Amino acid sequence: MLTIDLKLKDIGEREAIEIIANILDTEHLFKDTIGIGDDCAALDLGERYLLVTTDVIAEKTHIPRGASPKDIGWHIIAINLSDIAAMGGRPLGIVVALGLPKILSVNFLKELAEGMKDCASEFGISVIGGDTKEHEQLTLCGTAFGVVGKEEIMRREGAKVGDVIAVTGKLGRGGSAYYALERKTESKKTIHSLLRVFPRVIEAQVLAKTSSVNCCMDISDGLASSIYQLGKRNDVGFEIDLEKIPIAKEVNDISTNEDELKEMILYHGGDYELLLTIKRERIKEAIEAVKNVGTSLTPIGLVTKKKENVLITSKGMEALENKGYEHFRGEV
Amino acid sequence: MLTIDLKLKDIGEREAIEIIANILDTEHLFKDTIGIGDDCAALDLGERYLLVTTDVIAEKTHIPRGASPKDIGWHIIAINLSDIAAMGGRPLGIVVALGLPKILSVNFLKELAEGMKDCASEFGISVIGGDTKEHEQLTLCGTAFGVVGKEEIMRREGAKVGDVIAVTGKLGRGGSAYYALERKTESKKTIHSLLRVFPRVIEAQVLAKTSSVNCCMDISDGLASSIYQLGKRNDVGFEIDLEKIPIAKEVNDISTNEDELKEMILYHGGDYELLLTIKRERIKEAIEAVKNVGTSLTPIGLVTKKKENVLITSKGMEALENKGYEHFRGEV
Repeated sequence: MLTIDLKLKDIGEREAIEIIANILDTEHLFKDTIGIGDDCAALDLGERYLLVTTDVIAEKTHIPRGASPKDIGWHIIAINLSDIAAMGGRPLGIVVALGLPKILSVNFLKELAEGMKDCASEFGISVIGGDTKEHEQLTLCGTAFGVVGKEEIMRREGAKVGDVIAVTGKLGRGGSAYYALERKTESKKTIHSLLRVFPRVIEAQVLAKTSSVNCCMDISDGLASSIYQLGKRNDVGFEIDLEKIPIAKEVNDISTNEDELKEMILYHGGDYELLLTIKRERIKEAIEAVKNVGTSLTPIGLVTKKKENVLITSKGMEALENKGYEHFRGEV
Repeated sequence: MLTIDLKLKDIGEREAIEIIANILDTEHLFKDTIGIGDDCAALDLGERYLLVTTDVIAEKTHIPRGASPKDIGWHIIAINLSDIAAMGGRPLGIVVALGLPKILSVNFLKELAEGMKDCASEFGISVIGGDTKEHEQLTLCGTAFGVVGKEEIMRREGAKVGDVIAVTGKLGRGGSAYYALERKTESKKTIHSLLRVFPRVIEAQVLAKTSSVNCCMDISDGLASSIYQLGKRNDVGFEIDLEKIPIAKEVNDISTNEDELKEMILYHGGDYELLLTIKRERIKEAIEAVKNVGTSLTPIGLVTKKKENVLITSKGMEALENKGYEHFRGEV
C-alpha cells in the first residue's frame, strides 16, 4: 500500500494549527477560557480576562541579515504586544526565552536586552522573566500577558453584516520593506523600520472602551489573509474599497504600478495594525477616540451578507485574493 | 587599542542572565512583582500571585537523537510545570510556540501534539494557545502559568541556618541517562525516561500548605549547582550527607564506581525534583505530607552558618564542587 508521508510544506501553517487544535483537548479548560483561534488565549479572572500570547522568531526565517540587535530586541516585544492590543488588553508584563548561539558576542546580547527594555518601557511594562538556552540559531520566544475587562474584550468573532471595516494607521510598511530588501535599496533604514513595529496598544484600549467594536485582529499575516480569516470565522463577506486603504509613504516611494501597490498593502505580512469591524452608527465615535491618541482609524469597506470578499477598484469590482505569507509554504 | 570580543561561551549562562537582568529595568514592575531570579516570575493578583515561567528546548542542544515526538511533546510541558511546582503553584494553563522545519512530517506534528496533551491532562490543564513558525531546527518554547496563595508561595529566598535540606523522589535519572546514551546502551528506553519528566506539581502544593518550607527550587541544573545557587542567594552554606541522598535505580545499574555515582547524582542536570530547606521542627510533617501523595521527601543535610558547601562521605568531609551543566560552556 502506498502511504503518503505528508510534510508541513504540503499543508501550510493554518492547516497545521488546525491539526494541533483538534488534538489538544479542551477538557481541562477552566470555565470561560478562550483557547486557540484568537490573537491571545484568555483565562477567567472574575471581572477581567487574563490574556496570554506567545510568538517566536528565528534568525534565518524572520530576521533580515544585518538587523541590529536593538531592533531585534524591540521586535520580539512589539509583536507580542500587538496580540494583546488586538484583544483590547492592557499589557502587564512579558517573559522572553532566548535560544542563543554560544559564539554570540556579549555585546550583541547586551544590545538585544536594551532593545527589549526600550520597547517594554515604551508600553509601560517590564520583562519580568525568561530563559536562556544554547541554540544553533538565534531564536527569540516572547510570551506577553495582559488584562481586559470582560465587557471590553475584542475578539475575532463578532462581525455583523452592515458593520464598517476599518484599519488603524497606514498599510504597506511591511510589504514595501520586503520589496526594498529584495531590490537592495536602503537596507539599513529599511530593516530598522521593518523591525521597529509600533503595536497599537493605546489605540486598542481606547477603542475597547467605546463599545463600538464588534471584532478585531491584528493584520500581521497581511490584510487580505486577515479579511479571509474574519470572513470564515463570522460567516460573512467583505467589500473593500482599494482607494480608501490608507497607504504608507514607503509604498508610494517604491511601488512602480498598481499591481505592486496591491501586493504591498493587501497581500503582504509584517504590518502590525488593527483590523476592526465597527457598528455603523458608532464609527464616528471610534474614529474620534483613536484620533485623540494621535492615530488614524480609516474605514475601508463594509461587512456583507454575501460570503465573498471583493475589492472595489477604479476599474470596477474584482475578487480579493486569499493569499499572503503562510509559514511552511511561503507566498501562497 | 585591543578590544576583546567576549563570546557567550567565555562567560556561560549564569553570567549571561546576570547581564540581561542588569539591563532590563524594573521601573515598570507592578507592586509586589517577583522578577528574574526565581523559578517563575510572579505578578500580584491580590490575595494570590500569578506565576509565569518559560522554557525553550531545541533539537540539537536538548533533544537526544531518536527521541519520539510524543516524548518531546510531554517534555516541553513537564519542564515548564516543574517551575510552577518549584514555587508551590497550581498550574492554570500553558501556551507553546513551535518552530518547525517545513519538511517535518504531519504525523510527527500530530504525535508531538498528543504528547503535549497527555502531559497537560495528567496535571489537569490544557494547552490554551500557541504559535507555529517555520524554523530550520525543531524548537519548542513553553510558557506555563499558575496561581499560588501569597502565604503559600515558595521561593529561592528564605533558607535559614539550621534548616533541614531535603529532596523529593530519587536522584540521578538525568545523569544516568546521559551516561547510558554516551555508552549507547538501551537508548530507546533511556531517551524515553529522560524526556518523561514527572514534575512535582502535587507534592509542591501539598508542601506549600504545610508552612514548613523556607525555600525551594527545582534541581534541573543539577543538585550541586542548585545548592550553590541557594547558598549564594541566602548567604548560607550547606552540609550534604552523600549517603543520605536517595539514588535512582538507573544510577546503580550503570555506575561502576563512587566517582561516577557522584557525577550522576550531584553534578548532572536533567532531574526535575524539588530541593527544599525545611524548618527543623516541621520536617516530620513535611515528609508525611509528601508521603500521603505517594512520593518520598528525604533529608540530605543541613543549612550552615559557614558559607561553604561540604559533602560528608564515608571517607570524611570534602568540598562539594560548584559544577554542573551550564549552557554555552557545557560541563564546567
